[in-house]
Amino acid sequence: MDKTTDPYCILQGILSRFSIEEKEWLAFKDGTSIKQIKTGTCIIETGQLVQHAYFCTSGLFRLFCLLPDGREYNVAFTLENDFATSYASMIDGQPSTFSIEAMEDSIVIEIPYLLLQELMNKSHMWERFVRISVERLYTRKEERERELLYLPALERYQAFLLKYPGLEKRIAQYHIASYIGISPVSLSRLLHTVGN
Amino acid sequence: MDKTTDPYCILQGILSRFSIEEKEWLAFKDGTSIKQIKTGTCIIETGQLVQHAYFCTSGLFRLFCLLPDGREYNVAFTLENDFATSYASMIDGQPSTFSIEAMEDSIVIEIPYLLLQELMNKSHMWERFVRISVERLYTRKEERERELLYLPALERYQAFLLKYPGLEKRIAQYHIASYIGISPVSLSRLLHTVGN
Repeated sequence: MDKTTDPYCILQGILSRFSIEEKEWLAFKDGTSIKQIKTGTCIIETGQLVQHAYFCTSGLFRLFCLLPDGREYNVAFTLENDFATSYASMIDGQPSTFSIEAMEDSIVIEIPYLLLQELMNKSHMWERFVRISVERLYTRKEERERELLYLPALERYQAFLLKYPGLEKRIAQYHIASYIGISPVSLSRLLHTVGN
Repeated sequence: MDKTTDPYCILQGILSRFSIEEKEWLAFKDGTSIKQIKTGTCIIETGQLVQHAYFCTSGLFRLFCLLPDGREYNVAFTLENDFATSYASMIDGQPSTFSIEAMEDSIVIEIPYLLLQELMNKSHMWERFVRISVERLYTRKEERERELLYLPALERYQAFLLKYPGLEKRIAQYHIASYIGISPVSLSRLLHTVGN
């Protein structure tokens, strides 16, 4: 693997601004592993206890939950160079309330939460990295709440395009409909109306 | 003020498990101030740039936004011993997307975000405190999303009672209706049906 595709090199690039010491980086590498995930496989299933976070370096995941009426609701997507986990469940030790499924063959670094805790205990910079990562999760969640509250369907679709550039070409339209909270038929009609 | 009502003593109690050094605590006290907020006053207004977080030691706040159809939507409440701010706006330097209004005469510690950043730069323990606070914000947001998606109105009301014990006696019923996402008339009918 060259530097542009090696998962650890990619993550190291992202971590570079946190001045993480060499020995802490080596401890991270020692405690984690690289996994290849086939399309359709869930790295986390609803109801499961969550002991890992995943850094996706290649591929695509969806976070989804099953609604009481049987429909699937796509909560979010994780693309390359981003983290996927059921964060609240992981930190609270509670069963996950949603599943995370690979929508393409994907590569992830699997990070045990125990290791992350150890690194945060030893290192201010790991603590900072996690703090900023959680801030990002939180900001997105607030943004999503606002979109669902304020925006009509077409603008929710446009917000989806902005948030996940190019993703509309990689996934089926019914997955986008499930994310913006309308039926596939309504989305299709909406896009037809505006000439997409 | 005795130790049970002095805002700094209350916050220091909460911070005790973070082993924050004396000089860092003094820097915090020097850089913050105590404010008395009258019922009906907004500490943050929609559209405002947010430069402070607030720690509420007495009183009660609601975080609310104005929907496109003119209704007010209560996003969350902040009770005693908790933080209130428009966090995503504060860290991103963007105008706040909601307002925070005192529902009772309240006392807060006003904390400049710049000070918080300085403290996090100098101190691992402040960084940890903020990380854990944001994790809590995030967990609640995820919980709320789940409630709105999964639960019928009565169970959303019960979740409200569990999350904010005693709050139903301190605020008008229409504020609870606005939080659980139904009309005041529907809530009143619902509670009448179950004999509340």
